[in-house]
Amino acid sequence: MSGDVASESLRIRIVGTGLIGASLGMALSRKGFQVSLDDPSPTAAALARDLGAGVLAADTLGDPDVVVVAAPPDVVADVVARELSRWPNAVVTDAASVKGSVLRALQEKDVDLSRYVGSHPMAGREKSGAVAAQVDLFEGRSWVVAPGPKAAAGAVELVRRVAAAAGSAVLVMTPAEHDAAVAAVSHVPQIAASLVASQLLELSSSAVALSGQGIRDVTRIAASDPSMWTQILVGNAPAVRGVLESMAEQLDAVLAALRRLESDSGHGTVGARAVLARTVADGNAGHARIPGKHGAAPTTYAAVVVVVPDEPGALGRLLRDVGNAGVNMEDLHIEHGVGQPFGLAELSVLPAAVAPLMTALSSLGWRVHE
Amino acid sequence: MSGDVASESLRIRIVGTGLIGASLGMALSRKGFQVSLDDPSPTAAALARDLGAGVLAADTLGDPDVVVVAAPPDVVADVVARELSRWPNAVVTDAASVKGSVLRALQEKDVDLSRYVGSHPMAGREKSGAVAAQVDLFEGRSWVVAPGPKAAAGAVELVRRVAAAAGSAVLVMTPAEHDAAVAAVSHVPQIAASLVASQLLELSSSAVALSGQGIRDVTRIAASDPSMWTQILVGNAPAVRGVLESMAEQLDAVLAALRRLESDSGHGTVGARAVLARTVADGNAGHARIPGKHGAAPTTYAAVVVVVPDEPGALGRLLRDVGNAGVNMEDLHIEHGVGQPFGLAELSVLPAAVAPLMTALSSLGWRVHE
Repeated sequence: MSGDVASESLRIRIVGTGLIGASLGMALSRKGFQVSLDDPSPTAAALARDLGAGVLAADTLGDPDVVVVAAPPDVVADVVARELSRWPNAVVTDAASVKGSVLRALQEKDVDLSRYVGSHPMAGREKSGAVAAQVDLFEGRSWVVAPGPKAAAGAVELVRRVAAAAGSAVLVMTPAEHDAAVAAVSHVPQIAASLVASQLLELSSSAVALSGQGIRDVTRIAASDPSMWTQILVGNAPAVRGVLESMAEQLDAVLAALRRLESDSGHGTVGARAVLARTVADGNAGHARIPGKHGAAPTTYAAVVVVVPDEPGALGRLLRDVGNAGVNMEDLHIEHGVGQPFGLAELSVLPAAVAPLMTALSSLGWRVHE
Repeated sequence: MSGDVASESLRIRIVGTGLIGASLGMALSRKGFQVSLDDPSPTAAALARDLGAGVLAADTLGDPDVVVVAAPPDVVADVVARELSRWPNAVVTDAASVKGSVLRALQEKDVDLSRYVGSHPMAGREKSGAVAAQVDLFEGRSWVVAPGPKAAAGAVELVRRVAAAAGSAVLVMTPAEHDAAVAAVSHVPQIAASLVASQLLELSSSAVALSGQGIRDVTRIAASDPSMWTQILVGNAPAVRGVLESMAEQLDAVLAALRRLESDSGHGTVGARAVLARTVADGNAGHARIPGKHGAAPTTYAAVVVVVPDEPGALGRLLRDVGNAGVNMEDLHIEHGVGQPFGLAELSVLPAAVAPLMTALSSLGWRVHE
């Protein structure tokens, strides 16, 4: 293994030049890695080469240090096994979105598992193929490295370096931890999106015409490829079933609540309303746990409270003054007491902006509180 | 009623100056309507006025021609009834997202239903309140006008004019048709998003860190307000239950398929795989029915097929030539035969671009087919 080789001179062989393989080739080539490309389709490999993802494997001299298998889920284990045998000194990783089933398939074969380290770059697009490749596809995304029990530490380190070089934030977890996580954050959302979209099949065109941004967002990933997703769901069936059962139970509770509301308009509906409110509130709380776009914790804001007299133009003047202070306001809430000649405006801003904003507004005559 | 009054001189009274009321006031004021604003919170009304949504109701002279009630769902019927009594010559409409329950509540009151025409502007944002108002909130969105059986034709026409003046595409349907449609395109997607987001509550932070764009999109609306959504779901319980039951049935089928995959790795899994594939494929088909952003039918593209020799740079050169021809390529598929010295590139373009693109590529020596 080549754990002591400088990243810049690592030789990477990418097998499968679809979206993931071609994007990775582009990213690693830019970083100075020597990338060679292989694909069952010569045309697909040639397109990736033309996009700057590397050279064709046939043109390459020298054995690879790391082989990245970016093949469809149902052939990944076979291709990994073949590459492990073909390159006896290389570390082999794959990019499949389920890790336990690939490892189990390899454990049934006669291969050197010390050189295999499964991984999963959490990046993708609705479009597929090298034509959709982007050099920054992995930038700021998570890339899970999920070594099995026999993987050598040096092999894990090499795969980490490749993932980091592509721009990803590397997370190391076991294959089982990975599969449970993606069941909840990826596979069950896919099923939910597909089921919501399916309900449109029976609607009239004028009813479908009422679709707004909400259902567009919920169902965007419903446009995904059925054959790829069948492979993914089959590969992760136990973990997906677990999360889906919990969702089905909650769905049944919502259905029971709706039925109670229909059959009873009296006191029995109080509990039913509570079920509905808790469903949406739990969704709020779950949604709030999703980190910001680049894997960072969600930003928290600080509040500045300003007394606003109830006179024409007062709030408009305040918003103008906030803008002139060069402060970016994230949110604004208005509070008021009935009959009071003023209201309270609560401005949410970045914590660092609190002091400068208070100084600026005070100097303009506003009554300001933290 | 004032069906013969020119739109520009219509007097509109907006009751409730949150996101919808304030945005509507801004849009109608810009069109030259005389808009007056009322809200239980004087501060909220003042903010809407400061944003250019109209004048405060207290400052207004003259009875309104149309009253738009943009109040929370659970008080809409009471406010509509009050406005119908207070302004005996005005047409009253509301903006609540469920129409059947508002109409039924009004039918139990002693009000003049010939002057009430329910409506529902299909516009919204995650943010609420006048501070989130936008003059173009309704631009290109659907606005359902859903008259009950007693509504006068002139009243319906007046509400249509207001909706059209705000920039919306007006759809007329019965309250029942409306409620069945929004159950599928809005209310069930909200429940699904909440349930998917809820599954994150039990996950470790490192597992949640794997969240990608997919779950972000699916759960964006899970951040919605529980109290508002409880009111909406209660108001549309029968229609929501119907769609949700069909979704629950399909979810059970997916669960059964996953269980079969776990317990049997033989022939019994063929049917299970078919269930999963059909679920995603039905989602594809349902998703494809959602019209484009502005309510138009989805654009269909035409294909131009180009023969691409398997030589370095050939595909890159083709993409460059397509770009130079000034044609916007929507999609690209590569086909290939094993061992063939060329591939086929299928370019998807707007139908009108087919002829110019074929001429341009032919003149550069490409072999082109339609």
